[in-house]
Formats: sequence, structure tokens, C-alpha cells
Amino acid sequence: MSDPVATRRVYRRRGGRVDQIEDAVVVEEPVEIRIGGVPIAVIMRTPGDDLDLVLGFALTEGIALDPAEVAEVLDLGEGRFEVRFVEGTEVDPEQFRRNLYATSSCGVCGKASIDAVRIAARTAEPGPLIAADVIDSLPEQLATAQPSFDLTGGMHAAAAFDASGAMNAAREDVGRHNAVDKLVGTLAHRSWPVASPLLLVSGRVSFEIVQKAAVAGFRIVAGISAVSSLGAELAAELGLTTLGFVRSGGFNVYSGEERIGNLG
Amino acid sequence: MSDPVATRRVYRRRGGRVDQIEDAVVVEEPVEIRIGGVPIAVIMRTPGDDLDLVLGFALTEGIALDPAEVAEVLDLGEGRFEVRFVEGTEVDPEQFRRNLYATSSCGVCGKASIDAVRIAARTAEPGPLIAADVIDSLPEQLATAQPSFDLTGGMHAAAAFDASGAMNAAREDVGRHNAVDKLVGTLAHRSWPVASPLLLVSGRVSFEIVQKAAVAGFRIVAGISAVSSLGAELAAELGLTTLGFVRSGGFNVYSGEERIGNLG
Repeated sequence: MSDPVATRRVYRRRGGRVDQIEDAVVVEEPVEIRIGGVPIAVIMRTPGDDLDLVLGFALTEGIALDPAEVAEVLDLGEGRFEVRFVEGTEVDPEQFRRNLYATSSCGVCGKASIDAVRIAARTAEPGPLIAADVIDSLPEQLATAQPSFDLTGGMHAAAAFDASGAMNAAREDVGRHNAVDKLVGTLAHRSWPVASPLLLVSGRVSFEIVQKAAVAGFRIVAGISAVSSLGAELAAELGLTTLGFVRSGGFNVYSGEERIGNLG
Repeated sequence: MSDPVATRRVYRRRGGRVDQIEDAVVVEEPVEIRIGGVPIAVIMRTPGDDLDLVLGFALTEGIALDPAEVAEVLDLGEGRFEVRFVEGTEVDPEQFRRNLYATSSCGVCGKASIDAVRIAARTAEPGPLIAADVIDSLPEQLATAQPSFDLTGGMHAAAAFDASGAMNAAREDVGRHNAVDKLVGTLAHRSWPVASPLLLVSGRVSFEIVQKAAVAGFRIVAGISAVSSLGAELAAELGLTTLGFVRSGGFNVYSGEERIGNLG
């Protein structure tokens, strides 16, 4: 079983100084849940307590009505788990496979099986070069574009910037992925792929955020919060730059450092 | 169209004092996305920029490869939207409907259509009464149960407490819903419905968190961050207590205030 925390070599900028450090990143990996051999869902999760995760998921989503209905949760290896029901329990896996739905904090993608989690994402074009102090200016600009967050304290935001740090558009939503989709939908009216090179999100940079950004044509994905292990890996593979903990006077670079100036 | 922000009458406790105030809450409402009349996904979103949300979703999930493929996004009313493709575009709605997947920050439930977003959730049993200063003690206890958050700054947590404020179990995950599912899976080995009355999550209390909590048998759902409009409404309907912004020396009560002592 994988560890819940991995280390990654990152550039850390704090107060104008840049160090290369080993940073701890949260591990994000797909798990496929099966019933009767039929994949019904893939969840991006942190490894650990996997059998409890699958049991809890089956219960809280109403797939099993009682723990007594579940004979066991089998670890099939490679992130695949099977929920085995006790004999005589009526369960129709097709009912759940056909009827998944996406939620406020979630991107739905075209996959029920773990082999197909990645959708066609473009490899990032080279450039542009963005000065570190331009990055420093982004959180404050994002804050001015969050009127509903100010009121409720419960809203995510996503904003697009050009290489000089000018904000091209910003959108809010209760869901992280929705804020990105609203932003991409807005920018898509102007050009496709989107012309703005940089996406800033108010929360974490997870696998799905990187995937959505890559499909839309962003080249730099920055988050006010952490970058996940799989987010950084997908970004590195597709040639995207990822920045985490972008806060006043500092940020970490998890991939694509060639686009950030003044890193020394 | 609904507003992105609603007001709700809440009890606010700050520094031992309790007021009834009109609080601004982020609105969360389902949207159903259709292709060729076939519902392919339901997203919980904040109203506003809906046509851009649906266009952006279709693009970033690879349903449309280019905005030029989309003739228009039609608002069918009652939260339903249809993506109309230009003639000659090859799109198979079944491909997407069959193949949705759930992500790290998401609960998958048994629904592709907006009419069936709610799964069978039990109505909460009455009681227990919990003293306000017991609630005050919860965030610090949760923090001690977040070793991976301390390392990475990118992990959610969920913990179960009894009425005296003793922590029964806690779990971490990159996804909010996964942390709850891991916790429920753990507790389900001991009893079902779960014996602990109180669920505390490190983030927001959204519709899906309340739904998962209700299915598991929790009666009080508390969040370090905000409670969404639909989370509070579902909780009120099922008789659950919801608490938001549970931080040192204060919290807001959005529903079920009869379970909280000392509210005056």
C-alpha cells in the first residue's frame, strides 16, 4: 500500500529568497470500486484505510443498506476493490453504474474504470516566462474578485491571468471544479484553447484541476492551497507549471519551473 | 435565476455570547446536463453563469472537443440544461452517461437525473443535548488527529465525537467525502447506525456531507468552514443539527438548535 504522504523536490520562494527543498505532498491515487466484477465508480483518494473507505462509500451512497449485507471488501490489487455481498442480498450494480452523479466539488469525467481516468489533455505549449513578483500579486487580485466569498466564507474562485499579471476573468462557485468550468466557458467564447496562460484557483491543485486546465490550454496552474502528488505528476507529464501555497510573498513550484523568472 | 447567496436565520455564538442573526450562506443547487435529451450528469453548483458552466463542463470533460462543436446551451428550466451540438458532430451521450466517475472531492450517489438526487436518508433520532463549550473543544481535538495535514497542508479530516466531546475516531483524506466515508466505514464495524452522535469535518458542510451523515445515523454535523444553503435545508428536513465556522470560541447553528445547550 502506498503512503498517504510523498515527498517531492520543489522550489520554495519565501520573502524573495528561493531554496530547493524536499516538500511533503498529499498523495492522490485512483481507486476502482466493483460489485459483481462490474466497475461502478472510480474515486480519487489518499491511500490508507482503503477497506473502510470502500465499505463507508457503499453504505453512505446507499449501495449497501447495512454493514451486515457486506460479506467482505476484497483488495484485488492495483487500486481495485470488490464489494462482496452476503448471499441473498439484492444488489444491481448496473443501477449504480448507470446513475452516478457529479457533485459541487467534483469533476465528472468519462470514466468508470481505473484504466481510463485520464481524458485527452493537450501538452502545454512552451512559455511564457512569468516574473516571481507577478505571481506574488495574484492572491490579492483574486480576493477582489470574490464578492460572494466575502459574504459567505464558503465559495471557491478561479481566475485567468496573462503573463503580465493582468486578470482576464474570474468566477465563483461552491465547487472548485465548477468555478474552473465557469471560467473556461467564459473564456471559450473568446478563443480556443484559451488565450490566458495562467489559472489561479482559491483552493487545492488536484489531478482533476490540472486535467481541466490542460484540456482548456492553460500552461501554469496556481493554487492558494496545496498541490497533490498526482496533480504535480500529471502537470510534469503534460509540461504544465504547477504552483502551490501562493500567498503573500511566497509560493512553491512543483513542476515546470522554467516558466517562472528569478528562481536563480 | 436564483441568487448565489441566500440569507438564513442562525444562532451565532462568539465569546460566550449568543445572538440570532441573518447570515449569508452560499447557495448550492443541482443542475442536470443533457445531451440529445439524455441526462448525463447532475452537478451541485452555485447559481449564476450557468450557460458558461455547462459549456465549460462539456469542454473540460472532453464531451465537446471545441466550442465550435456546440451550437448552443439551452436553459430548459428547473435546473435542466441541454448541450446542442452543431449538425454532423459525433457525440454519444451513452458514452458519458455510462462512464461517469467520482473524484477526490466528491460523493457519487445513485443519480443521473435531478429528480433523484436524494438517496434514502434516515430522519435523525432526537437528542442528545451538547453543551456549547463542548463544541468549542472540538476543533483542537480534530487538529491533533491530522498528522498528514500538518505535513502537507492539503488533507481533509473527519472525526466522530460522543455527547461529552470525546473523540471516537478520526480519518484523513485528500477528499472531504472520502474522509467521511473512511470514518463511517470504521465506525460501521462497531454498530449500525453509528453510535457517535456528532460528525466534525475540516471543511464545508455541503448537501452531500449532510446526506452521508444522515445515512450513517449522525445527528449533529459540524464544519470548520461554511454550511451551504442546501446542506442546511436537507438537515432541517431530516432533523439534523448543522454547525458552521466551528472555531475557537464560536460557531453558528444553521438547523436543529434544540440539541445545543446554553443558546439562551
